[in-house]
Amino acid sequence: MNVLAIAGSLRAASINAAFCRAASQLAPHGIAVSCFQGTGSLPLFNPDLEQRPAPVVEAFRAAVGAADALLIASPEYAHGISGVMKNALDWLVSYEGFIAKPVAVVNTSPRAHHAHAALLEVLRTMSAMLVEEASIAIPLLGSCTTEEQMIGTPAIATQIRGALVALHSFVSLGQRTGPSFPVTGE
Amino acid sequence: MNVLAIAGSLRAASINAAFCRAASQLAPHGIAVSCFQGTGSLPLFNPDLEQRPAPVVEAFRAAVGAADALLIASPEYAHGISGVMKNALDWLVSYEGFIAKPVAVVNTSPRAHHAHAALLEVLRTMSAMLVEEASIAIPLLGSCTTEEQMIGTPAIATQIRGALVALHSFVSLGQRTGPSFPVTGE
Repeated sequence: MNVLAIAGSLRAASINAAFCRAASQLAPHGIAVSCFQGTGSLPLFNPDLEQRPAPVVEAFRAAVGAADALLIASPEYAHGISGVMKNALDWLVSYEGFIAKPVAVVNTSPRAHHAHAALLEVLRTMSAMLVEEASIAIPLLGSCTTEEQMIGTPAIATQIRGALVALHSFVSLGQRTGPSFPVTGE
Repeated sequence: MNVLAIAGSLRAASINAAFCRAASQLAPHGIAVSCFQGTGSLPLFNPDLEQRPAPVVEAFRAAVGAADALLIASPEYAHGISGVMKNALDWLVSYEGFIAKPVAVVNTSPRAHHAHAALLEVLRTMSAMLVEEASIAIPLLGSCTTEEQMIGTPAIATQIRGALVALHSFVSLGQRTGPSFPVTGE
């Protein structure tokens, strides 16, 4: 299973980006997690360019289309989804390859719930298949903020591996039963 | 009174951008509405660059700081705030000149309520002074989509002028009573 991890912050010391890298390193055998690096290079979304997007947008869509599942880890800014993450998602709204894509949404700062709820609403509206069992809330802020700390803290590492295994089970089940209309879409 | 109007879409035929231009033309004597043109040129928000932002970010902040009030008109994408608008706001979160700024939030597509509610929550969190009397819901989608149509439709033109007058009253009252802590902030 190939998982594309997308972090919603461009901060060098971003906890969410560190989470994605930790997930990549902790992935059990049979699961490959790659971190999308181009979020900060995407142009601001313009519906007029939807049909002839910049190469970086095409590369992003291709990476999303090729992934068996997505892992999204994004911060909350002023009680909202980060503009960086929403901008990336805006480029995927009309992209067919996103429909019914299994998505795990990780909240690394569970006290922040506005952006998380908004993100779920947006992803549902985009006809993602939200994978609840893999969407963990994991309070990292303040205690465990680097990739090394996450990997080196057994309780955290176990939670991350568990989320990936849950995502894998969901995807495997989907592949056995074949594609179906996303039950969480609208 | 100087009002800075900010549209949340980069589409050439954007209804929200047309609304801002119409407001600029319809503004009664004593109110000047200028439309911010640089939303699409802002870089994606990066907290690491907060203290030494690009010149375009500084120009945006300066324009916001110099305005007596803001008029925000933004579309809903996939039940969320447009990434373009959220990105612009993310650059203002730590900008002192935004605190207690009177803001009118116009919803040009009232059937879309998720993004509007999310926008209000974000602006409240940023300690804006939301001006309810000036925050009109005005169903333009499908019927009245260009600046010329808005200006040429008496019922719509009256609503737009009314919103500006309400914003003006709010700002004048604030100036008479002096600055106070924003009651809608948290």
